[in-house]
Amino acid sequence: MSLITVGTMAFDAIETPFGKTDKIVGGSATYVAYAASNFVKPVQQISIIGYDFPQEELADMKSRGVEMDGVVVIPDKKSFFWSGRYHEDMNSRDTLITDLNVLADFDPKVPNSYQGAEFLMLGNLVPAVQMSVIKQLKQRPKLIVMDTMNFWMESALDDLKDVLKQVDMLMVNDAEARQLTGQFSLVKAARQIMTMGPKYLIIKKGEHGALLFHGDDVFYAPALPLEDVFDPTGAGDTFAGGFMGHLAKSGDISFENMKRGIIVGSAMASFCVEKFGPTRLKEVTRSEIDARIQQFKDLVSFEIELL
Amino acid sequence: MSLITVGTMAFDAIETPFGKTDKIVGGSATYVAYAASNFVKPVQQISIIGYDFPQEELADMKSRGVEMDGVVVIPDKKSFFWSGRYHEDMNSRDTLITDLNVLADFDPKVPNSYQGAEFLMLGNLVPAVQMSVIKQLKQRPKLIVMDTMNFWMESALDDLKDVLKQVDMLMVNDAEARQLTGQFSLVKAARQIMTMGPKYLIIKKGEHGALLFHGDDVFYAPALPLEDVFDPTGAGDTFAGGFMGHLAKSGDISFENMKRGIIVGSAMASFCVEKFGPTRLKEVTRSEIDARIQQFKDLVSFEIELL
Repeated sequence: MSLITVGTMAFDAIETPFGKTDKIVGGSATYVAYAASNFVKPVQQISIIGYDFPQEELADMKSRGVEMDGVVVIPDKKSFFWSGRYHEDMNSRDTLITDLNVLADFDPKVPNSYQGAEFLMLGNLVPAVQMSVIKQLKQRPKLIVMDTMNFWMESALDDLKDVLKQVDMLMVNDAEARQLTGQFSLVKAARQIMTMGPKYLIIKKGEHGALLFHGDDVFYAPALPLEDVFDPTGAGDTFAGGFMGHLAKSGDISFENMKRGIIVGSAMASFCVEKFGPTRLKEVTRSEIDARIQQFKDLVSFEIELL
Repeated sequence: MSLITVGTMAFDAIETPFGKTDKIVGGSATYVAYAASNFVKPVQQISIIGYDFPQEELADMKSRGVEMDGVVVIPDKKSFFWSGRYHEDMNSRDTLITDLNVLADFDPKVPNSYQGAEFLMLGNLVPAVQMSVIKQLKQRPKLIVMDTMNFWMESALDDLKDVLKQVDMLMVNDAEARQLTGQFSLVKAARQIMTMGPKYLIIKKGEHGALLFHGDDVFYAPALPLEDVFDPTGAGDTFAGGFMGHLAKSGDISFENMKRGIIVGSAMASFCVEKFGPTRLKEVTRSEIDARIQQFKDLVSFEIELL
């Protein structure tokens, strides 16, 4: 089944305690595409880029089954650029530069060839853009998942709430879930978010794993304890790409299959952080992915008789 | 099989965002005993108390199979007292008062009736006291587990390192593992600690669960996502009590059985935080424990075919 992914295709410059990069390719839709294309074809990209986005990168994505009909190229502007520096804990970071460039004019048009897609991943963008994509779809996807961030909660909360009413799942980190609800307890935050529209909620906790909520059901997927987190940029989007890729591949949106999707997403994210940018995602093999998923099984499996 | 537990039996006064208590019974050995006695008898206590420690509390523990031959009563001094205030996140707290009282003179003598115990839990105490107990045992226990804290790393590091050489397992929280090794990565910290003596390591991460390391094996037990954490005091000791109680009951110190022990410990800790002090531990029933363990199984179980 096909997957539409809406988000940025951009440049990042990253500093971590392990090193720094010049401008490298990044953006939420880039990470989603590289992760999801391991599992499903086509991945139908909706984004906006400038004249400077590398042709080789587009060609590489296309060769992996990523369709570019929904990617607008602005010939006289630069691509979106973000620069940041991570602290030693790798969970917090300072933004050094945000150059919107082409992103300031992003008004996505869903190509006809994308109509009928069963899965939609709305990356973190201004809520009005997320809404516009939903409205343009003639047939409602089987599953609509959205990401967002604190910035939109502060600057466009009403629009954000409108989008929430239209989606099946919200995927945010723990700080964002707390900010959106004013609840410190993630269980209470989850319950409140599930009254705002989404029937499913994934709370990402970085090195502490991820929680999936649906009604009274909860699933806790750990993150793999890693020797080094080299660069966490894109890990959340890679998680989303692995999750959506697995779901779109199987077409199964049961809670049981979402659990599997979270394990697949966590495995992909664990590769993402091993090198700068999407480098590791571009070289990872199917057998490496299998081995990583097996590590997750071993990590949490236990047998216990009730007393 | 029998379990010796060494630690404090004390009073706490606690403030949390949910309320505050006057002096209530606490102390590491108290929590270990209440948790472990659900699984194994006897629990053989080594501690020191003043004239003010409640007789009813001692009687209550005895009725649960906790032996008090190793608990010294100082008739003209008060019991150890700690007072603290938790922040909203419940992971950080300020110590308001620490009155050592009887603890200043703690020089434990292992009663003859305790000799031959197969399991030893060394609660967080000055390392020299932990060492003294190990030295007094005529037969080495099957498993010696120790807790410690940052204070001893700063004030008695050499003694602490000597004790580490004598134990099978260290049980600390993530901040303590990082401080002991200077490694931010818990995987690297674990590897380093396992060269310092202990062949097993448990790193407690509070609401994010616990990690068990042994050689190249890792197990990640999540914590149950809770609606409210009412009072986290004693949760770590309760975890230790459940863990050691399960191991001592079965006599099995395999890695597989330690995984089960961690689930049992996590289940007990999830009860502990529901009310102030050990209140909830004193009323919990066997069927409640069973139901809670089942919740842990449901929380992490997934089935996945490799791709």
